[in-house]
Amino acid sequence: MPKKNAFYAQSGGVTAVINASACGVIETARKHKSRIGKVYAGRNGIIGALREELIDTGKESRAAIHGLLTTPSGAFGSCRHKMKSIEENRAEYERLIEVFKAHNIGYFFYNGGGDSADTCLKVSQLSDAMGYPLQAIHVPKTIDNDLPLTDNCPGFGSVAKYVAVSTREAALDVASMCESSTKVFILEVMGRHAGWIAAAAGLAAEQEGDAPHIILFPEIAFSREKFLARVKRTVKENGFCVIVASEGAQYKDGTFLAESGLKDAFGHSQLGGLAPNLAQMIKDELGYKYHWAVADYLQRAARHIASQTDVDQAYAVGEAAVEMALAGKNAVMPCIVRGKGKRYRWSVGEAPLDKVANVEKMMPRNFITRDGFNITDAAREYLEPLIQGEAYPEYRKGMPKYVRLKNELVPKKLRKSFTV
Amino acid sequence: MPKKNAFYAQSGGVTAVINASACGVIETARKHKSRIGKVYAGRNGIIGALREELIDTGKESRAAIHGLLTTPSGAFGSCRHKMKSIEENRAEYERLIEVFKAHNIGYFFYNGGGDSADTCLKVSQLSDAMGYPLQAIHVPKTIDNDLPLTDNCPGFGSVAKYVAVSTREAALDVASMCESSTKVFILEVMGRHAGWIAAAAGLAAEQEGDAPHIILFPEIAFSREKFLARVKRTVKENGFCVIVASEGAQYKDGTFLAESGLKDAFGHSQLGGLAPNLAQMIKDELGYKYHWAVADYLQRAARHIASQTDVDQAYAVGEAAVEMALAGKNAVMPCIVRGKGKRYRWSVGEAPLDKVANVEKMMPRNFITRDGFNITDAAREYLEPLIQGEAYPEYRKGMPKYVRLKNELVPKKLRKSFTV
Repeated sequence: MPKKNAFYAQSGGVTAVINASACGVIETARKHKSRIGKVYAGRNGIIGALREELIDTGKESRAAIHGLLTTPSGAFGSCRHKMKSIEENRAEYERLIEVFKAHNIGYFFYNGGGDSADTCLKVSQLSDAMGYPLQAIHVPKTIDNDLPLTDNCPGFGSVAKYVAVSTREAALDVASMCESSTKVFILEVMGRHAGWIAAAAGLAAEQEGDAPHIILFPEIAFSREKFLARVKRTVKENGFCVIVASEGAQYKDGTFLAESGLKDAFGHSQLGGLAPNLAQMIKDELGYKYHWAVADYLQRAARHIASQTDVDQAYAVGEAAVEMALAGKNAVMPCIVRGKGKRYRWSVGEAPLDKVANVEKMMPRNFITRDGFNITDAAREYLEPLIQGEAYPEYRKGMPKYVRLKNELVPKKLRKSFTV
Repeated sequence: MPKKNAFYAQSGGVTAVINASACGVIETARKHKSRIGKVYAGRNGIIGALREELIDTGKESRAAIHGLLTTPSGAFGSCRHKMKSIEENRAEYERLIEVFKAHNIGYFFYNGGGDSADTCLKVSQLSDAMGYPLQAIHVPKTIDNDLPLTDNCPGFGSVAKYVAVSTREAALDVASMCESSTKVFILEVMGRHAGWIAAAAGLAAEQEGDAPHIILFPEIAFSREKFLARVKRTVKENGFCVIVASEGAQYKDGTFLAESGLKDAFGHSQLGGLAPNLAQMIKDELGYKYHWAVADYLQRAARHIASQTDVDQAYAVGEAAVEMALAGKNAVMPCIVRGKGKRYRWSVGEAPLDKVANVEKMMPRNFITRDGFNITDAAREYLEPLIQGEAYPEYRKGMPKYVRLKNELVPKKLRKSFTV
């Protein structure tokens, strides 16, 4: 079999461990130099392929590549460029294949969420239709934990740990001050359509009555009346109330509690004013002194408190992607399979991409308490293993040592440039 | 000398390491049982003394007290109750002395910031005037780092580390997405009057041009024009711009960039809408896609990423407070003294309370670059040692193990109750 090069790209919102998957892909490819030649990475994701801006990861030292294991965010750059359907934008797909051909790329590893799984599948189909041999493997990544078929998504465990730890810590703060100061604390977390991240805050509670007292999920229609009644009751009984709200929390009619009116490249509404809105509601109706925090990027970049389980799984799916490619697979995604039995065990399985693309996995209803304000024991059992272990990075001068890659581009081979 | 009891109270906003000072006080007092009897702690700070709600720390195990070293926030409760001047509220001061007398309290350890130093001094003066022998020692604590005479304040080093680490991490996130998505990221941090916390974000930069690109200090009058010009230039040159803004950032006329209109018990304005305001400004004028985060309580409760130096110093001032009391001192505060020489060394010194109370230490002008948007090498030299070392707590089931105390109250001895 002639030796082919590989192309790896990061897609969509980055995570604390997406680079661990990159590390898994590159380190594993390097072990198979007889079959895989160069590993190129897209500069800023798939845009890099379209523009023929390919990073030669071969220029990076072994230590630098290994450092990706403990470096958050996308070391090669990621992007929010959505490839439309083949009918709508055939030119982009053909350009991709053209670039792949020019650089003798036979393996395509696409590291992202649902949208990228869809793109990966289409690229696989088109290359097949065009008679260009390409193995397209999707490497799962999303903090939102909303991909189907995999037990969980690499990226989620670390944000879950960050949110659970931060909630426990902030709750101690509010508890110690509530007698004469703040009575209500609101933490806004990510999760546009699925409440997985907000749910993870529930792990902060050790005993009945512990914070968080209220979790707002996108899956449960928001009722202002019920919410305010619960806040009031909690403050009365407990002295204070800690609320963790998913940015995707919405009214019955689908209106988000906070819409900025902006949309991103995928056509998703840009959110982010939920916490101050809730605070205002509480102040107006109940008059409590409040504080609110919006974790935003801090939560998904927080490599300093990453889950060891998450890091291990992120690496493993990268590694498995290369192994699947070497085994001749195409249009598949390595996924996490949870073992049966009380003790948590996991292994890497394989999911066909046509079953993954464009399906969002919501929180099962039995993970949310009947009143809609908290998580059940079933949710806790599912979530707890995912935050196990502290995968601390190394520190230098009091700060985490994160790698910077050289990111040297390969000389272009195509005459035509392509505007994205 | 007859054996006296001690009273310890936590005051004002809590920190990641105020309990480490409590640990220092209690463990040291326990070593001197021949001189110090019980150590009582105020339930919810000084309010606990006024209400005669005294927690008997003797009921807590050695392990529980030692666990305070790694537990954030105020384990006995804190409060924002400000004692006014003796003339305005003599009754409160007299009540304090009455409670101290009733419980044979001869040592008063007050753990707080500038306002508490003032209260501590007044209590010392009044007890003297009333002929009641009391040694009042102030134990410094404030994330704001604004106390005079001490090189730095316990509590600051940990929030500084959190802010520096979070800024470095979020900046990697923005860098990896900026080609097709977010161009401007704003992190709002605490610091009402002094920009120390925002300054600490400057430690995130390793090289010229690294994030944060703009720091907004309360010490530097905000100019909308200069700010927007700098944001624009940074995005143009660098692709993205990371801004860290102190909640106390203000215009030349003293108007805060974000005032909610509320005031707390000390009469300070309640802030917190700065980041969204800045984001709006940038969107309106420059049209960049933005994200913003407000760390709020997360930053001061973040024991999971506490600075080892900070924990050590917090413990040391608690320990020194007891030693000073045993040495017969009164109306003093243990402070941190920085050694001379290139290698960072520190020791505990002693500051008279009348020089500490009601003085705010601002950032020296030479710690801020001439353009007002960043920190200088002098600031870096000062700040860097304070975030050294990672004082990780223990974990259980993926979550930090923080102690819960029993907080058993001592039976009341006074007939009269007192309303605070």
